[in-house]
Amino acid sequence: MPSLQEFIKDSINSAPAEPVKLSDAVAIEEVPTPALIIDLDLFERNLDKMQTYLRNNSIDLRCHTKMHKCPIIAHKQIDAGAIGVCAATVSEAEVMQTNGITNVLITSPVVTPEKIDRVITLGVDNPDLQMVIDDIEIANLFNKAAKRSGIQLSVLIDLDPGMGRTGIEMGDPALTLGNHIVDNCDSLRFGGLQMYAGHCMHIEGFENRRGKYNHIMGKGAETKTLFEESGIEVPVFSGGGTGTFNIEAGLGLMTELQAGSYIFMDIEYREIGGEGSERFEDFEPSLFVLVTAISKPQQRLITVDAGFKSFASDKMAPEFRDVEGVIFHWGGDEHGIIQLTNPSREINLGDKLPMLTPHCDPTVNLYDYYYPVRDGMVEELWPITARGRSQ
Amino acid sequence: MPSLQEFIKDSINSAPAEPVKLSDAVAIEEVPTPALIIDLDLFERNLDKMQTYLRNNSIDLRCHTKMHKCPIIAHKQIDAGAIGVCAATVSEAEVMQTNGITNVLITSPVVTPEKIDRVITLGVDNPDLQMVIDDIEIANLFNKAAKRSGIQLSVLIDLDPGMGRTGIEMGDPALTLGNHIVDNCDSLRFGGLQMYAGHCMHIEGFENRRGKYNHIMGKGAETKTLFEESGIEVPVFSGGGTGTFNIEAGLGLMTELQAGSYIFMDIEYREIGGEGSERFEDFEPSLFVLVTAISKPQQRLITVDAGFKSFASDKMAPEFRDVEGVIFHWGGDEHGIIQLTNPSREINLGDKLPMLTPHCDPTVNLYDYYYPVRDGMVEELWPITARGRSQ
Repeated sequence: MPSLQEFIKDSINSAPAEPVKLSDAVAIEEVPTPALIIDLDLFERNLDKMQTYLRNNSIDLRCHTKMHKCPIIAHKQIDAGAIGVCAATVSEAEVMQTNGITNVLITSPVVTPEKIDRVITLGVDNPDLQMVIDDIEIANLFNKAAKRSGIQLSVLIDLDPGMGRTGIEMGDPALTLGNHIVDNCDSLRFGGLQMYAGHCMHIEGFENRRGKYNHIMGKGAETKTLFEESGIEVPVFSGGGTGTFNIEAGLGLMTELQAGSYIFMDIEYREIGGEGSERFEDFEPSLFVLVTAISKPQQRLITVDAGFKSFASDKMAPEFRDVEGVIFHWGGDEHGIIQLTNPSREINLGDKLPMLTPHCDPTVNLYDYYYPVRDGMVEELWPITARGRSQ
Repeated sequence: MPSLQEFIKDSINSAPAEPVKLSDAVAIEEVPTPALIIDLDLFERNLDKMQTYLRNNSIDLRCHTKMHKCPIIAHKQIDAGAIGVCAATVSEAEVMQTNGITNVLITSPVVTPEKIDRVITLGVDNPDLQMVIDDIEIANLFNKAAKRSGIQLSVLIDLDPGMGRTGIEMGDPALTLGNHIVDNCDSLRFGGLQMYAGHCMHIEGFENRRGKYNHIMGKGAETKTLFEESGIEVPVFSGGGTGTFNIEAGLGLMTELQAGSYIFMDIEYREIGGEGSERFEDFEPSLFVLVTAISKPQQRLITVDAGFKSFASDKMAPEFRDVEGVIFHWGGDEHGIIQLTNPSREINLGDKLPMLTPHCDPTVNLYDYYYPVRDGMVEELWPITARGRSQ
């Protein structure tokens, strides 16, 4: 019988992470639905486009694995030029590190003894691990734990961009924490600042978004200057995301971008608008949920086999990729009811159709495997190794 | 290398289903969060209460496993007196049957060849399997597949209660399908009718709910009479749920209740009101998400480590079990921001607190394990074996 800690460790070590190669390639029409499918051509185009853009603008890419939860994809991003990854949770970091990815930044505070121990355990094996901290008492706990294990843990200070989610207040409070780490925490190494203005990522309209984001990040820049004037170097400034990828360069503040959604995209991002365009289409939707029409209870309705358990429902409803003139109504946990107002094509029982996801991150978190598709065929499955690893 | 079908079959056969006994019991405060916890005393009280009530009213209990996704819990329900279970999907049925539960009704239509084959494969091993059907063409496909495998498959006709989700129109269309099955499908055995008025489960106010439900079910009763007058016996009438558990007996139509949520309850059900009470409290909330306070970015805010990936967000926001005078704001995928308007107790960094779930089914579907708790201690984990089995 394992202890709880042993059980958790074993389950992370044994979670499937390699591609499952199929003996026979399967046509997409044969995949049991609901299924999460990746259009590989579009996915690769997104991968390259972001990397090329950031390289040309001298910003590093630190991909956020909270979105895809998949070491296979993280390795592809690193192979394409990303310097490393972010993890939103300790267990995501454990999954990534267990599967060969060492340059990992944990982007959300950790405060309890058992999780601080898990971070330190990762740090013992991996000098490239970085942790965010936003509180002096917590810094002390990490310092003690790092000292006990004989390591120096690299930490970034997390700044609250005024969003009120995580992070310490900018200006003097942040500097006080910085000084405390530098002066009193000899087992912590100050690595820089994190400032993720999540509330700006989905501001509609490019100019509107740029204006508000620049205003908020201006305060981050002031805090960085405050640190430097106090003699604390800030080698790294980490944050931003898909919604600000082409705003950061103009600011010149961010050294690394924490983008995740760009590889898959979703309806929420599409709707925010791009530079000079009504829709944000710098990246193309490459992620879909394949659904099947399973019932036709009434003349102008057809029901598909995907509801709250197949699409995250925190945002708008899903949309078909290839059918217009219909309205998706949530039909509960396992169903979506399609109102056939003026459908651009017929939908018959048994038809399998790809749908765009409203919000990719929590939708991915509902599935165990991706079905990557090229030319209509699936040759292997990719385990979503860190799915459900919210701890 | 497996074929896709082999891979899916293997993954269901090998999915963990037994309790994971821990070498040392763990205090609930040591559980890494977010975690799904069951208060065992309340859970068992709910289990007994529903069973006793239905026994006294001569209605069978066919528990819906779409809610808990857990063979351990299904066995407890059957041990307490349930006649069998429902499954919303083929893969849920596969998980249950693989783990020793044979009296299974699949409650949602299946229409594609690969899934019809999976249902028939289950039926070959299990004469107690039942499938719903709501379309003549699909009945023919099932009949052919059953004949090929040399079995008689028991089927219920799914009636659309006017919800427009699944089911055939009541009255003549349903009878036509019934006659077709009886007359032309010699490998199908007509087992009765299913009518699940999901749109009635959450009607607020008991009398209001009872009135609307009785009206709708009256049409189901007429269809049943139509069948009987045409010489088709209807031994089973299956449907209903937690929200109508104490309405069915007065109607005298339902022979078996498809209840799921009663063992755990959630905020959505609490709010609908009970018989003679503002809140529906016939069953008590026994399911909680344990969260940790991880950041205090501003004076009147504290952030917990649970957002869209830890609570289903199709309904209202979660609530603390033991703290009042605060407001939960969704803080994204991994965070909830607690506004401390007039908190009934202090919340400090590192505090672990249980929260009620807004909607239990899709919340359960986010987790791999339950932590059952008695007297504040966890002795084993229960795998949520069918989690993510939406196919």
